[in-house]
Amino acid sequence: MSKNWSEDNFIEYLAKQFTSNNALMGIGDDCAVIPGEASGKVLLVTTDALVEGVHFLKDEIPPEDLGYKTIAVNVSDINAMGGIPKYAFFSVAVPKHENQTWFLKVIDGIKKACEHWDISLLGGDTVGSKRDLFLNLTLIGSADADKIKYRHQACEGDVICVTGTLGDAGGGLKVLQKRVKETDYTETLLRTHFHPAPNLKIGTWLASHDAVHAMMDLSDGLDCDLKRLLKSSQKGAIVDISMIPISNALRNACQVNDWDPLEQALTGGEDYRLLFTVDSSCFEEFKNCFQNNFEIPLFAIGTVTENSGLYYRKEGKEFHMDYQSFKHF
Amino acid sequence: MSKNWSEDNFIEYLAKQFTSNNALMGIGDDCAVIPGEASGKVLLVTTDALVEGVHFLKDEIPPEDLGYKTIAVNVSDINAMGGIPKYAFFSVAVPKHENQTWFLKVIDGIKKACEHWDISLLGGDTVGSKRDLFLNLTLIGSADADKIKYRHQACEGDVICVTGTLGDAGGGLKVLQKRVKETDYTETLLRTHFHPAPNLKIGTWLASHDAVHAMMDLSDGLDCDLKRLLKSSQKGAIVDISMIPISNALRNACQVNDWDPLEQALTGGEDYRLLFTVDSSCFEEFKNCFQNNFEIPLFAIGTVTENSGLYYRKEGKEFHMDYQSFKHF
Repeated sequence: MSKNWSEDNFIEYLAKQFTSNNALMGIGDDCAVIPGEASGKVLLVTTDALVEGVHFLKDEIPPEDLGYKTIAVNVSDINAMGGIPKYAFFSVAVPKHENQTWFLKVIDGIKKACEHWDISLLGGDTVGSKRDLFLNLTLIGSADADKIKYRHQACEGDVICVTGTLGDAGGGLKVLQKRVKETDYTETLLRTHFHPAPNLKIGTWLASHDAVHAMMDLSDGLDCDLKRLLKSSQKGAIVDISMIPISNALRNACQVNDWDPLEQALTGGEDYRLLFTVDSSCFEEFKNCFQNNFEIPLFAIGTVTENSGLYYRKEGKEFHMDYQSFKHF
Repeated sequence: MSKNWSEDNFIEYLAKQFTSNNALMGIGDDCAVIPGEASGKVLLVTTDALVEGVHFLKDEIPPEDLGYKTIAVNVSDINAMGGIPKYAFFSVAVPKHENQTWFLKVIDGIKKACEHWDISLLGGDTVGSKRDLFLNLTLIGSADADKIKYRHQACEGDVICVTGTLGDAGGGLKVLQKRVKETDYTETLLRTHFHPAPNLKIGTWLASHDAVHAMMDLSDGLDCDLKRLLKSSQKGAIVDISMIPISNALRNACQVNDWDPLEQALTGGEDYRLLFTVDSSCFEEFKNCFQNNFEIPLFAIGTVTENSGLYYRKEGKEFHMDYQSFKHF
């Protein structure tokens, strides 16, 4: 399609074309929300497609990891709304020439992920393709109706938080693309790239706290995803770039290869961390509670503002972000 | 993948790998069945992938029809269990070079189908692809738990029925592939091929009758699909080929082009009629009731037998079916 039309433009177009009165949330968040199994419960539905040569390089990713990742990226969407994944539906278009053993390893990875998150794979479609390998997963989850966290609920003054270091998965992709020599730190980055690890305990814990206002997962890089959250909430933000958490592995890789760690952290895709905003009036208590509970730090990186626009600051001065946003291959 | 492994083999493999205690029905029927919104209700979930060059020829199918068909084939699955479609999730991988106007017409077709069947499109994923166009649709429907019709409920002695003429859509595909000169009858066949028309009134009516035992939709041709229903029910059948309904349009096309109408009717895919079995003890009354209600004939084509195997009869004698099953392009 025309490069003038981004994924976001297209989603906006679809959201205008397809409005719904039957659902609690349609197009425009991590999941759709539909009436659930029992009173007070809702179902969350999300779907993600992975295409060979666009989202993964078939010769680079181990097939088990590809299968695992197909489930994990959708678990991340359910987690970002505060839900628990339950039922998966897997469609795959496999080129006729494809090696069957390779493909069964993809299934092994899907099975491993389903077991890990207690997901029932209930159906799908298996078809041939002419050339490219295409995977699509639809995941249905369950959540308490009154605990769902949407993107549009950020309030002025909220503290903007992330649940872990950023840019590692994007660094892993860069290690692959630039064919960087293997070391301990490249291994760490590659593992993050191949094996997203959404943490359901953290997602449901955050969902159970009224102090958390807006929430989403990070899939296309902090800069891109935070803009989406702010647009949805009709707010702006100031982010202190010195507060953005960057791992030692990524810093090391950046130093050795002359990459910019901040660029990686802001634009690297597939972090699958949670990005959320917290009521500032109870933030210190909330932060201590989070850290005591999970024994990992909570990273506060900025503040939601009334005016629109996302501004970065470095040592008190405005900092211009002129990196290119994350793009798949 | 290896041609030795059919879609059915692969589905069997998946069904063994992924068993579920949480769902009422997992892999192996037209839809999965999960606990529903309210007491006595269940949700039906189905997903179908359509791949360029395999399920459709991009230069042959009008884009609106492609969009419409993407919804319609999934509606047919929901209908085959006796449910009503409600929520759709649409994934698409579009090659970068693709014409945007063409693709917006696909969306128009999806919208038209959603309006026709009162379906809310609530989400999806829009990604790039390197070469091929892929469409995937997941459709969620609703049904009364005690009225769902599965494939595995055929009983010995049941009358096997179909809801309309067979082979028309397959004939339409053949018209395209063989570049047959356009006439009135080719137009009828092409319309059936491009525009599947599952009838929800018929599906829900059949689901509300206890006399109907097993039900499924016809997507891969009567021979292939009836074998699936029988295998699932652990039964066999005798089908009288003189009772198989064939349209005048198909007969005409076959005569002019020297095709075998029976081969088309038995192996032509994408009929999207309903195939079901009815308790023989009340069949005459049931048939009259159906015909009075819908003002179309009900076609009884055979009988379910205790022994396994599907046998065809012609004028009282055994008839050997040695046609190739339906294959996509």
